[in-house]
Amino acid sequence: MKNPVKVVTIGGGSSYTPELMEGFIKRYDVMPIREIWLVDIEEGREKLEIVGALAQRMWDASGHKVKVHMTLDREEALKDADFVTTQFRVGLLNARIKDERIPLSYGMIGQETNGAGGIFKAFRTVPVILDIVEDMKRLCPNAWLINFTNPSGMITEAVMRYGKWDKVIGLCNVPVGSIIMEPEQIGCKEEDLIYKFAGLNHFHWHKVYDSSGNDVTLKIAKRLLEYAEDPTAPRNIKGCKWQKDQLEEANILPCAYHRYYYLTEEMLNDELREYNSKEGTRAQQVQAVEHELFELYKNPNLHEKPAQLSLRGGAHYSDAACETIASIYSNSYKQMVVSTKNNGAVSDLPDDCVVEVSSFITGHGPLPIAFGSLGDFERGFLQLMKSMELLTIEAAVTGSYAKAVEAFTINPLITSGSTSIKVLNELLIAHKKYLPQFKDKIKELEDKNITVKDDVVRDLCERGL
Amino acid sequence: MKNPVKVVTIGGGSSYTPELMEGFIKRYDVMPIREIWLVDIEEGREKLEIVGALAQRMWDASGHKVKVHMTLDREEALKDADFVTTQFRVGLLNARIKDERIPLSYGMIGQETNGAGGIFKAFRTVPVILDIVEDMKRLCPNAWLINFTNPSGMITEAVMRYGKWDKVIGLCNVPVGSIIMEPEQIGCKEEDLIYKFAGLNHFHWHKVYDSSGNDVTLKIAKRLLEYAEDPTAPRNIKGCKWQKDQLEEANILPCAYHRYYYLTEEMLNDELREYNSKEGTRAQQVQAVEHELFELYKNPNLHEKPAQLSLRGGAHYSDAACETIASIYSNSYKQMVVSTKNNGAVSDLPDDCVVEVSSFITGHGPLPIAFGSLGDFERGFLQLMKSMELLTIEAAVTGSYAKAVEAFTINPLITSGSTSIKVLNELLIAHKKYLPQFKDKIKELEDKNITVKDDVVRDLCERGL
Amino acid sequence: MKNPVKVVTIGGGSSYTPELMEGFIKRYDVMPIREIWLVDIEEGREKLEIVGALAQRMWDASGHKVKVHMTLDREEALKDADFVTTQFRVGLLNARIKDERIPLSYGMIGQETNGAGGIFKAFRTVPVILDIVEDMKRLCPNAWLINFTNPSGMITEAVMRYGKWDKVIGLCNVPVGSIIMEPEQIGCKEEDLIYKFAGLNHFHWHKVYDSSGNDVTLKIAKRLLEYAEDPTAPRNIKGCKWQKDQLEEANILPCAYHRYYYLTEEMLNDELREYNSKEGTRAQQVQAVEHELFELYKNPNLHEKPAQLSLRGGAHYSDAACETIASIYSNSYKQMVVSTKNNGAVSDLPDDCVVEVSSFITGHGPLPIAFGSLGDFERGFLQLMKSMELLTIEAAVTGSYAKAVEAFTINPLITSGSTSIKVLNELLIAHKKYLPQFKDKIKELEDKNITVKDDVVRDLCERGL
Amino acid sequence: MKNPVKVVTIGGGSSYTPELMEGFIKRYDVMPIREIWLVDIEEGREKLEIVGALAQRMWDASGHKVKVHMTLDREEALKDADFVTTQFRVGLLNARIKDERIPLSYGMIGQETNGAGGIFKAFRTVPVILDIVEDMKRLCPNAWLINFTNPSGMITEAVMRYGKWDKVIGLCNVPVGSIIMEPEQIGCKEEDLIYKFAGLNHFHWHKVYDSSGNDVTLKIAKRLLEYAEDPTAPRNIKGCKWQKDQLEEANILPCAYHRYYYLTEEMLNDELREYNSKEGTRAQQVQAVEHELFELYKNPNLHEKPAQLSLRGGAHYSDAACETIASIYSNSYKQMVVSTKNNGAVSDLPDDCVVEVSSFITGHGPLPIAFGSLGDFERGFLQLMKSMELLTIEAAVTGSYAKAVEAFTINPLITSGSTSIKVLNELLIAHKKYLPQFKDKIKELEDKNITVKDDVVRDLCERGL
Repeated sequence: MKNPVKVVTIGGGSSYTPELMEGFIKRYDVMPIREIWLVDIEEGREKLEIVGALAQRMWDASGHKVKVHMTLDREEALKDADFVTTQFRVGLLNARIKDERIPLSYGMIGQETNGAGGIFKAFRTVPVILDIVEDMKRLCPNAWLINFTNPSGMITEAVMRYGKWDKVIGLCNVPVGSIIMEPEQIGCKEEDLIYKFAGLNHFHWHKVYDSSGNDVTLKIAKRLLEYAEDPTAPRNIKGCKWQKDQLEEANILPCAYHRYYYLTEEMLNDELREYNSKEGTRAQQVQAVEHELFELYKNPNLHEKPAQLSLRGGAHYSDAACETIASIYSNSYKQMVVSTKNNGAVSDLPDDCVVEVSSFITGHGPLPIAFGSLGDFERGFLQLMKSMELLTIEAAVTGSYAKAVEAFTINPLITSGSTSIKVLNELLIAHKKYLPQFKDKIKELEDKNITVKDDVVRDLCERGL
Repeated sequence: MKNPVKVVTIGGGSSYTPELMEGFIKRYDVMPIREIWLVDIEEGREKLEIVGALAQRMWDASGHKVKVHMTLDREEALKDADFVTTQFRVGLLNARIKDERIPLSYGMIGQETNGAGGIFKAFRTVPVILDIVEDMKRLCPNAWLINFTNPSGMITEAVMRYGKWDKVIGLCNVPVGSIIMEPEQIGCKEEDLIYKFAGLNHFHWHKVYDSSGNDVTLKIAKRLLEYAEDPTAPRNIKGCKWQKDQLEEANILPCAYHRYYYLTEEMLNDELREYNSKEGTRAQQVQAVEHELFELYKNPNLHEKPAQLSLRGGAHYSDAACETIASIYSNSYKQMVVSTKNNGAVSDLPDDCVVEVSSFITGHGPLPIAFGSLGDFERGFLQLMKSMELLTIEAAVTGSYAKAVEAFTINPLITSGSTSIKVLNELLIAHKKYLPQFKDKIKELEDKNITVKDDVVRDLCERGL
Repeated sequence: MKNPVKVVTIGGGSSYTPELMEGFIKRYDVMPIREIWLVDIEEGREKLEIVGALAQRMWDASGHKVKVHMTLDREEALKDADFVTTQFRVGLLNARIKDERIPLSYGMIGQETNGAGGIFKAFRTVPVILDIVEDMKRLCPNAWLINFTNPSGMITEAVMRYGKWDKVIGLCNVPVGSIIMEPEQIGCKEEDLIYKFAGLNHFHWHKVYDSSGNDVTLKIAKRLLEYAEDPTAPRNIKGCKWQKDQLEEANILPCAYHRYYYLTEEMLNDELREYNSKEGTRAQQVQAVEHELFELYKNPNLHEKPAQLSLRGGAHYSDAACETIASIYSNSYKQMVVSTKNNGAVSDLPDDCVVEVSSFITGHGPLPIAFGSLGDFERGFLQLMKSMELLTIEAAVTGSYAKAVEAFTINPLITSGSTSIKVLNELLIAHKKYLPQFKDKIKELEDKNITVKDDVVRDLCERGL
Repeated sequence: MKNPVKVVTIGGGSSYTPELMEGFIKRYDVMPIREIWLVDIEEGREKLEIVGALAQRMWDASGHKVKVHMTLDREEALKDADFVTTQFRVGLLNARIKDERIPLSYGMIGQETNGAGGIFKAFRTVPVILDIVEDMKRLCPNAWLINFTNPSGMITEAVMRYGKWDKVIGLCNVPVGSIIMEPEQIGCKEEDLIYKFAGLNHFHWHKVYDSSGNDVTLKIAKRLLEYAEDPTAPRNIKGCKWQKDQLEEANILPCAYHRYYYLTEEMLNDELREYNSKEGTRAQQVQAVEHELFELYKNPNLHEKPAQLSLRGGAHYSDAACETIASIYSNSYKQMVVSTKNNGAVSDLPDDCVVEVSSFITGHGPLPIAFGSLGDFERGFLQLMKSMELLTIEAAVTGSYAKAVEAFTINPLITSGSTSIKVLNELLIAHKKYLPQFKDKIKELEDKNITVKDDVVRDLCERGL
């Protein structure tokens, strides 16, 4: 029997932490926990204390003697860790508000993992994750890094390519949603279906077969076309219907986020509607939900994950993380869809890049399934997006403005030209605090008196948020 | 000494024919001509007669005894041909007006070789070129097909992939323009510079070195950034300035048409301005120029290419064609930028697809230079565009509406979503006469009473043009 | 619950059949059998009757009501089959004697799956398997073909590439041997180790990790170097010791058959010793064992697999087959090492070729693990062998003598030159009866009075065997 | 007009130097020479003085005022060089005697660029060329390195891969021989034929077309099969006849050195005959020729390349070098077959490795022609050989004995097993003086009292040669 493990969660003050605790408690028999460390930064201290107390209450109620440590000292926490999970959000939800509102203020998709917003989330996160990796090299060189900070695929790629750290797995809840919801669409159970996912995080496709090997992909596609609201999609992108001819002939299922690319017009209109509404964009809505959640978390009698968490979005994220960790620990070959090194799994992309593919999780990490090549349509799109990711990561690491322009130019959700440059510049200025690598360029822009147009964002900036 | 050659020009009634004749006359000593056949269709009979008579006058004035045959019978013309050049335009300039105006009526780029228009030009042209290839297999199985009908790269790819005809070369005047105009930007001559082009038709990049091997790409880039109007660009896309940081760091020169992709916003605005102007879109302007040209051509005393032809656009096209043909004939290893089978020249694309690359033209056809791999930015963009081309060609051959939707979805100049489907449907209806492969879908659309919104196009349709 | 299955075994009169029956009986609860058909040809009628009777006795003793049909009519048997297993040997063991003795008579490796012998086994078998596939297309188009006729990888490749039949899996007992024997070398159990195999049939490598993810490949390698006789190798190739420096630095384990390539000299000497001994080559020894086995099989009181079968070699073959079939039937994701379509699993080889790799067996067939790229040494060797396989298969399908010469020239176990041509020619003549595709060349050789040098083979030929 | 150039020749005391001088004199009008530096080492001082004096006499007789400097100080010579040519032979011809005789003493091919000998020539040469490159980085960072020290392809690969120096071109006279001799075989002239070479140094193939584009490869192949002695092959490998069926069906021409791989048996027999003859192996014969040559060179009245040099072998080597250099200098796009970075030219090999391909030589270096993919036979063989080269170079750089064993194991001219290890060990001992990177292993072997079997070699070793 292996030793009980030490788990460290960076961004431990997140509202997701209770779900993570629930996941570990549920799997305690498979993977005993030695200690849990929740790490956060000064700005997150209050949330950390609230959620940490709840976490401890949950463990206490479980009957397992597990100590939940709360700390702002990352190095103390990382020492001898077995698993490090990352769910931090650089700049908190306010940063996401900027990622969403600045592009929308110019009539472009504003989103936290796609388009201009996704690029900037990477710009803010990559330097931090690379710092964490440097700490891990010193303090816990045998630990696994389980990342679910978004954009999860790019973060994983940055860790491998620039951090030179291969023991990393990127997670996403989107494939989990498909696997849970699709079987019931065609009247069967999860164990009756065989899944093959291939692509990138938030940009993958999948094929489905029944247990006799028959291709049921089209059958599922036809069902999804019947719905007004796609039940397999995350809360924020349910409403948009696929183009029927395309979906039926493709005979491969896109992921929910592909709507941004297949149905850009509709997605943009939907976002603009929110942008102009009283509730504001998704980040603003989530901010409200989170506020309520933390109020609930404070209740000293609460010792389980409250039902309201499911409104937060991101369902299954923590469950996927716990399942992955437990599967590494117990070498159980559990099939998961994860971001990992390609090694030929998707033949249309180089061996050394990160892809999101069906994998069996072992004590040696993920064994990805070789999917082969995609069709003409999917292949070209996929190769473009991998280029976009590589340019974004390079810009995030080097602070190259030209690479940032290239990432913007090639991104299918950004219309190239002078407005896109305005969006880029405003985002640089608005996120200044978290973009030290771009400080020279930001200085240059400030000297030109470039300011942010959107009122909400300008207000946040002025308040130093 | 080899035998004098028989040249056949499909679309012989084109206004470009005089330039072609001039090219052959200029090279007569290198490549003697046995006979020239200008082929056209019934709708082009009048233009054929005008331009054919001028062509004969040009040859008579040259002192060479060359008979210019005019015919509507393609098979008669192709018999025992040595070289077949194609410069036909299915649906004439009216079709181009539709390609341009329908997308613009919905606020999208309307262009004849890029975006929705380019896709539809391929839809109309691919079936015709494949017919021509079938004729050639019977009537002149050893002939070379020299294509400069646009979209030149896709047409070449269709000929190789679906026509199974490898003796084809696709030409374009854009690289010729760069090679002629760039040396003077940095104060040297064409023979002082070494060029390496790689990419696709209207989507290629190039590197430039001086004769000592020094990279002068950046030097040229910096010069181009100084101009208000790029002197190396074709007439229709001169005005738009590259993004400085991007161009300087890339250290590889985009082609003029890349403006559509790097500066979509500006290009669209420029086209919308024309769309809303009295003169109308480029096709409408060209129609006026052409009318004047044919008036000039009628002059029985004219026996040379009139200077006004240069206003037509497409300068150097015919010269490139004549140079290529003469180089095959004389096995002269002339360096040209042509569309040909990849075979590894651009490592980022499969061996068996068509690319536009620097090549040495021999009696055995083009020997393409191995360029290697492009940078992250160029690579992803290129791979996307090749997918877009393959989907377009497949739709053109099979009449698959779903493949057409995929081509539209992936095309960077088309915003995906319901408006793009409207544009697709209107284009299908407007071009009905030339799209037999889509007839079932068109019938279905007509049954739904889908009609064309743009007045100019609707008028053309109603007049059966 | 799925329906009970119909299993058809081509080459049903083989001595392996009792092991196959044992395997099915053992797994009856997981996969109930409806009926079993043992198919053979006229020459094998007697053996079929003996082994078929034993098979029926085994089922009767098991308590399951399963009827074992014996037939020489392949079409009758194949009708509505669920699984077809192939274990036939074209030309029986006499053909193997020729495969071994003719090369050895000229001082070259004589072996049934490697070198000249392996090439000729493919020449005899490929046309037959392609015939079977044609029957299957008509009679049981949904069946799986589970091949363990050698050379198993090439047969699988032929079925996919030329037979256009994708529901095929090639099996081999060599990886099974490694997986069973290696854990005890380092004091652990099979479930404690994680295996990654990649390569070709009889030409694969593997990496091993413990359940905590640590690489234990070198640890196993060091143990294997201590033995006089490698306990993980098949009976026929135990004796030869790996070169220490090479094995230790490679940090990847070769398969037992790699001895033919890493230690050609020793393997040849060993074979020559047998060739010159009274017992003769391996095929002659096996012939004796088989004779004894069939005497045992005749015993009407025998109703289980006799222990002596293990002397026959090929242990675990049938078990691997039964396990694979049961795993497809029950969609159990059992990890097996099988020959299947590459699809990127081994990045050093094209997607569309067959490789032997670790795979999870599902109701949809094998899901191969993406292994990535091998080291310089393994990669070049592997690519050479795949070429050798493709040339062999092409020669087997087309009867091209030139392709046969190329396969011989490139095969690392054959010294190229005039002696190799003699060996090729004698093999053609000796196997004449089973090589209709080469009949013109064989006629030409006979007209030149080319005869076989080896006495034993000449005697077989004269007796029409 | 560019400036006159400074040329430095490392190994200047070689008997080839007069041919090199002749080449420069012949091309003086195209490329004026400022100064020539012949560099050698202490052991070569006498030869350097003889050949240097002749070189100066040749220039004086030419009427051009060019000073030929002779020096043992490489750094002095390299300062501000424009072109550095390398034709040195580490260990002189005595080392080649060892490369040839040790393998042959064990019945294996003994050759200076193939098999065990070629591997050891690389072991001795790679460290020296990497030293030279380090000097060049300091002393002449803009110079081109024109290598014709064998094994020319591996040396070029080492310079690029480990020396990180891209301005290097590897030359070989074998393709030159084909291009000169083949046209007359089919009754035409060099300028009438179009050549496409692809592969590796001493392991390339080529296709030939006439000036009308017709494939004449087979026509040439048929002619070559008629000869008793192949007129296109170098002196040392003329006698062996290709296998007719194979050559005719392949429809691609192998290079002369392919005889070692296609006809190993005959080549070995031929070498063994020489090995056992009074004249000895090729190196011993060349030693005699060289002795005579230097006697001739001493003649103060000789001021041109003596005719006897052609007996030396290696004809056209220097001419190829001069032509390449002049073509770089004058940016003349001369077509040559050179070792250069692949970049897709041969799609079967990675972009970043060195291949030998048809290229156009410009002021920016070679522009290789994209050949595409080879047939199954050639591809597998080529990929194997590239692996062999990479392993050899890695062993040469690192001194890894295991990598050396791998190179030996995979080399098609070496039978793997214990005898090959003996050959490896004896070669290490015999070349001890020039293999500092292997000194630990050599010490270990000496401690085991391993000695050299061949008398001639043992004698050389004992005499410290």
